[in-house]
Amino acid sequence: MSKNKKDIGEKLEKIGKNIIDQLKNKKIPKINIPTRTTQNIIFDPKYQCYVLGDKKTTRTAGNIRHVKPLAQLLKVAAFSKKLVKDGRRHNTKRELYYISESWGEKLKFDEQQEADSIVEDIEAMIGYPREDIHIIPNNRGSIYGDVTIKIKTPEGKEMKINCLQTADGQAIGPRMCEGEIVKCNANKIIAIETTGMYNRLMEENAHKKFNAVLINLEGQAARATRRLIKRLHEIKNLPVYIFTDGDPWGLHIAMVIMAGSAKSAHVNKMLATPDAQWIGVTASDITKYKLRSDKLKEVDLKRIKELKKDPRYKKDKRLQEELITWEKIKKKAEQQALMRYGFQYVVNEYLPAKFKELGSK
Amino acid sequence: MSKNKKDIGEKLEKIGKNIIDQLKNKKIPKINIPTRTTQNIIFDPKYQCYVLGDKKTTRTAGNIRHVKPLAQLLKVAAFSKKLVKDGRRHNTKRELYYISESWGEKLKFDEQQEADSIVEDIEAMIGYPREDIHIIPNNRGSIYGDVTIKIKTPEGKEMKINCLQTADGQAIGPRMCEGEIVKCNANKIIAIETTGMYNRLMEENAHKKFNAVLINLEGQAARATRRLIKRLHEIKNLPVYIFTDGDPWGLHIAMVIMAGSAKSAHVNKMLATPDAQWIGVTASDITKYKLRSDKLKEVDLKRIKELKKDPRYKKDKRLQEELITWEKIKKKAEQQALMRYGFQYVVNEYLPAKFKELGSK
Repeated sequence: MSKNKKDIGEKLEKIGKNIIDQLKNKKIPKINIPTRTTQNIIFDPKYQCYVLGDKKTTRTAGNIRHVKPLAQLLKVAAFSKKLVKDGRRHNTKRELYYISESWGEKLKFDEQQEADSIVEDIEAMIGYPREDIHIIPNNRGSIYGDVTIKIKTPEGKEMKINCLQTADGQAIGPRMCEGEIVKCNANKIIAIETTGMYNRLMEENAHKKFNAVLINLEGQAARATRRLIKRLHEIKNLPVYIFTDGDPWGLHIAMVIMAGSAKSAHVNKMLATPDAQWIGVTASDITKYKLRSDKLKEVDLKRIKELKKDPRYKKDKRLQEELITWEKIKKKAEQQALMRYGFQYVVNEYLPAKFKELGSK
Repeated sequence: MSKNKKDIGEKLEKIGKNIIDQLKNKKIPKINIPTRTTQNIIFDPKYQCYVLGDKKTTRTAGNIRHVKPLAQLLKVAAFSKKLVKDGRRHNTKRELYYISESWGEKLKFDEQQEADSIVEDIEAMIGYPREDIHIIPNNRGSIYGDVTIKIKTPEGKEMKINCLQTADGQAIGPRMCEGEIVKCNANKIIAIETTGMYNRLMEENAHKKFNAVLINLEGQAARATRRLIKRLHEIKNLPVYIFTDGDPWGLHIAMVIMAGSAKSAHVNKMLATPDAQWIGVTASDITKYKLRSDKLKEVDLKRIKELKKDPRYKKDKRLQEELITWEKIKKKAEQQALMRYGFQYVVNEYLPAKFKELGSK
């Protein structure tokens, strides 16, 4: 069992022990949970992401309205402790909702929202994301490149997976994202928004040319994908480059990888990769590379305005300037627009220029 | 080069040769294209899917409005011929749209729709889906099970991929879906709508217990996934079972695998697996297994009415009855709802009962 797993198991157990101790001391049991409302979400300049402040919410068996969620929290903590110990099974929050039916009428979740909220409470209490207690978000996305990951198969056997031993990529799910990174010959990560461009980079041998691990985000990055990116970055010291469409939505896909979301303030530190860099397509690229573009719509311009005010963007002069350029040129472009110069342009010209600009080795 | 590739190359070449012959004979060149409008889409009782009828549309250089699309069709056919010969590169329709910029002002596509339409014309003319001329749809979904596929890597090297050598599944993209199936120890395919249930079946060892290949559809099946299912079914004689949520949308995910869509009438024969069977969750299952359910909404009931009239459903008494049961009970259920009976119920009770009902070995 890894160090993390031990720590998590102990933290989950402590939640229950704390209740037992209070009961033994004839106190009405209660627990303190970090508050997750907007009033307690602050921007941490050191980590460059939203985190929770110090406020706590108390849930006490002395309040009749708290009794059910308090009991449910203990039940989910106990359930998760077993999952962590077993190590083999992972559940979705949706499965948890249905599983709760077997806990009886008094404990079962009446709405999905109840289950979600309790899982977030536990994440905030133990300081680990729910993936670590084996309650997993839906995954999507895949990885291609010369990195070898030791995983546990669904049957519980150890197996080494090299991410070049695949036709179109290894799917990134719960086992891949928590596997041990045993070897990595690549020296950078390129995360790509669209499946089309991911395939293009594979076929133009970007993984060899740039000695890179290619990651297909398939749109907004799933949490399992963000975690795997963060782990490769931290454990193998790989710089991370994010290649998206040239619009505010593409830029924000990059930002969520870099700084997480406000909604996940209680776990951002475990998911975000603040050092990751956005390659583009930038607003300036649209003009510089004469890309076929579409007009920015009202909804795009509104989004740009929001991003300009967002603390995650405030500190980054380059991103601020790109937002202003978008407002000026009022155009957006897809990453595939680079194809006007042929198949190889993106690997022979565009990306090398970008890596130089961003200071890559 | 496989037999298909040779045939496709010849058919593409014939399109151009035909034009040259007409020009040599001093005729104004024209081509005949199978008509793809609804008037020419018919339901084929033998294949149990929509196909094109015999009507043809003529595109002639004698009509000024036909000149551009005729020239574009020839250009795309020539472009595809090169892709097929090269064998290594695959493009999306979106890439094609951007690539066309390098063909000059007179030939370039002004709208994506122009490119889409011409690709469909070529599919209908040669009788192969566009994947075979390396103009690929976006893929998603993954595969897990004891099947070995010989693929060409993006670098063009041959490599054997065993689909158990993976943490969370092998992504199904252009290389996987066209690879040679060299060995298959499984005796059935289970295709699953949701990532949550796919993971559950992996973790409960359904692949071993049922000697099955598990395929994660991730919702509506992508074309690459449908093709791989069809090829495994035909080449290795594997029966196909589709496991979806218990609502009309889930059932229709199964139907598109079985019978294709009206929109793809010109290629359904190459994509559909008419022998595939829908496991459920059926409308009757909701009552039988006492599943937690939601009320059918107006939009669900409207969909059920449409499906009842759809020729793809007319011949199947079981599906007709399930549609009627839905209308009666007015409830829908997710496949995860089976979790109320614990992790293993789906593999120990539900699926065995279903395979028996559907007549599986």
